[in-house]
Amino acid sequence: MHKGRLEAFSDGVIAIIITIMVLEFKVPHGDSLQVLIPIFPTFLTYVLSFVFIGIYWNNHHHLLFAAEHINGKVLWANLYLLFWLSLIPFVTNWMGENNFTQWPVALYGFCLIMNGIAYYILSQILLKQAGKDSKIAKVIGKDKKGIISLVIYLIGILLAFYNPKISLALYFTVAIIWFVPDTRIEKTILKPDNR
Amino acid sequence: MHKGRLEAFSDGVIAIIITIMVLEFKVPHGDSLQVLIPIFPTFLTYVLSFVFIGIYWNNHHHLLFAAEHINGKVLWANLYLLFWLSLIPFVTNWMGENNFTQWPVALYGFCLIMNGIAYYILSQILLKQAGKDSKIAKVIGKDKKGIISLVIYLIGILLAFYNPKISLALYFTVAIIWFVPDTRIEKTILKPDNR
Amino acid sequence: MHKGRLEAFSDGVIAIIITIMVLEFKVPHGDSLQVLIPIFPTFLTYVLSFVFIGIYWNNHHHLLFAAEHINGKVLWANLYLLFWLSLIPFVTNWMGENNFTQWPVALYGFCLIMNGIAYYILSQILLKQAGKDSKIAKVIGKDKKGIISLVIYLIGILLAFYNPKISLALYFTVAIIWFVPDTRIEKTILKPDNR
Amino acid sequence: MHKGRLEAFSDGVIAIIITIMVLEFKVPHGDSLQVLIPIFPTFLTYVLSFVFIGIYWNNHHHLLFAAEHINGKVLWANLYLLFWLSLIPFVTNWMGENNFTQWPVALYGFCLIMNGIAYYILSQILLKQAGKDSKIAKVIGKDKKGIISLVIYLIGILLAFYNPKISLALYFTVAIIWFVPDTRIEKTILKPDNR
Repeated sequence: MHKGRLEAFSDGVIAIIITIMVLEFKVPHGDSLQVLIPIFPTFLTYVLSFVFIGIYWNNHHHLLFAAEHINGKVLWANLYLLFWLSLIPFVTNWMGENNFTQWPVALYGFCLIMNGIAYYILSQILLKQAGKDSKIAKVIGKDKKGIISLVIYLIGILLAFYNPKISLALYFTVAIIWFVPDTRIEKTILKPDNR
Repeated sequence: MHKGRLEAFSDGVIAIIITIMVLEFKVPHGDSLQVLIPIFPTFLTYVLSFVFIGIYWNNHHHLLFAAEHINGKVLWANLYLLFWLSLIPFVTNWMGENNFTQWPVALYGFCLIMNGIAYYILSQILLKQAGKDSKIAKVIGKDKKGIISLVIYLIGILLAFYNPKISLALYFTVAIIWFVPDTRIEKTILKPDNR
Repeated sequence: MHKGRLEAFSDGVIAIIITIMVLEFKVPHGDSLQVLIPIFPTFLTYVLSFVFIGIYWNNHHHLLFAAEHINGKVLWANLYLLFWLSLIPFVTNWMGENNFTQWPVALYGFCLIMNGIAYYILSQILLKQAGKDSKIAKVIGKDKKGIISLVIYLIGILLAFYNPKISLALYFTVAIIWFVPDTRIEKTILKPDNR
Repeated sequence: MHKGRLEAFSDGVIAIIITIMVLEFKVPHGDSLQVLIPIFPTFLTYVLSFVFIGIYWNNHHHLLFAAEHINGKVLWANLYLLFWLSLIPFVTNWMGENNFTQWPVALYGFCLIMNGIAYYILSQILLKQAGKDSKIAKVIGKDKKGIISLVIYLIGILLAFYNPKISLALYFTVAIIWFVPDTRIEKTILKPDNR
């Protein structure tokens, strides 16, 4: 139950974050297809950020599902992650409205990297509590994607000042890395006993 | 519990989607009844979209209630459905602000069709997992409304360029199709054992 | 569980409705106390509507707590109530921005009356299902406040064209009627067996 | 279950409050780092208010976790707390947009003090119901931080007219007081039997 409320609150916050970005699509004047073209970059950034937040929700789901003990540190580490997630709509819009120029793309990457770090902190605190033989240790232990993502984000931020399109390609790469092998992780969690 | 969190997150997102459309009713200047007339089309589209999202929530409710096994694919298929649902407020407002002209009505239909497809994908993934003798197979198996809806939407989109009012009438027809026999489906789910 | 999800979805929608009204407080220019004066009527309407939505949430809570069987009709009656609740922020703002003149005050009362009717429909459907000897029948059966509220709202709407301040006083009266004897109802529900 | 719904509704409202503040970051025109400077004070106030709302959520979590009996008074005391929490985004933005001048800083403190009082009322009502030997009495009984916070807020409000920066420092102090010993409280709750 304790865990349940942490999950419910996180679900609420993430649900709002993933939805409020859509409020930024200002309905254009005019009723032709042409008027939609200027908001197309904003739409693309919406898709990208929707996927990122979706990935975080999925991972958070798996992580908390494996977690058994929750304490004050976990609550704050979770709030810290929610804080950085809550900034994604802002950096998303700044990037979309400026057609993917240097600083907005770099700041977007910075926000992603901070989310990655916050997620890492949360998982480490849960790991420390649960111990090395726990279910959660199995999930996190085998998982080097977190570190790889942070490195790719860092390269993406640096390259934003050279060519922001490469940065975007790198951010997309991270999304794909997380998207694809989700099923594998899940098998690790769900095989032995639970459900 | 696993399923519970998927439901809770979906509830959160759908609750926000169904509510944020009301933020688009900009309070008009003036305090007479006349000032409400220009926002009346927006109000009508709000009602229509509220009903559509309500239908999806109801169906999602029945579908997930019958579901037993949830995995990563289901999470992503569910997020894909939520993505298309999240675009309904945008297409709703574009249609309302342009008094139901061709392109906005066609795009509205396109968004509905994409929602229908996303829902179909979700139900098929759940079906595949649960197997042919499952509770979920009974619900989906007898149900041809999904396919019929997609066909009607398609006709609606095409006719939008001829006469958008016919399209709207067709969209309303789909809403009524889903609205009416809801009780019948439910009986199928709830009769044998559960509750 | 079935009931649980209906409650969770309603909680989500009501939570958003009760909160988005605060988005209408546009931060005024200037940093003196004087600049807050023009938004004071908006603040008062926020308080009034917050209380009304709070009352509906409390009543909804008690009603659903007593409810045992949920079906498609209940889902739709509940959505119908949520629809009218979702219009409260709009009528609240229209009333606040026009300093409580005739039409806005009348429309506010109309929205309240429609909410009252929707709530009545929901309770009747639940009553019909549960039967005359049910827990829910005891709660609703003794309760004439619903009808009294509707009558007061109606008088309020009519008097809005004579003197809107009397209407507001009447709306406040209804709020107080519901606010005060909440404890009594609750005792009726919670005495015998549950908890 | 009764308690569960109170928690779920509160989670929904708090999740929205903590998230909508981010909607106030209007995306600036221009794509250089310089355009972010004017919104930096708004960002700082966002961080501060995020932390305060996070503290209230954590405390609410602990309080309700220890609570056993819920009645109508608790529902209203909880709504009263949610009401004052819902005003935090407004006072936050007013303060951020005026670069921390006297009245905005004082009103911010006033809102914090009202939240503190509302929380105190809620905890006292829960205490009265549960009795002196209850789990909740142990948590609240040892806890003098509530009173200390109110005193510091009061000093902060008064000093805002002399030097608003001292007020801000005092508000931060309260945040730190609550932030740090959270773990200690938690031990008191979670040691004996539950979980």
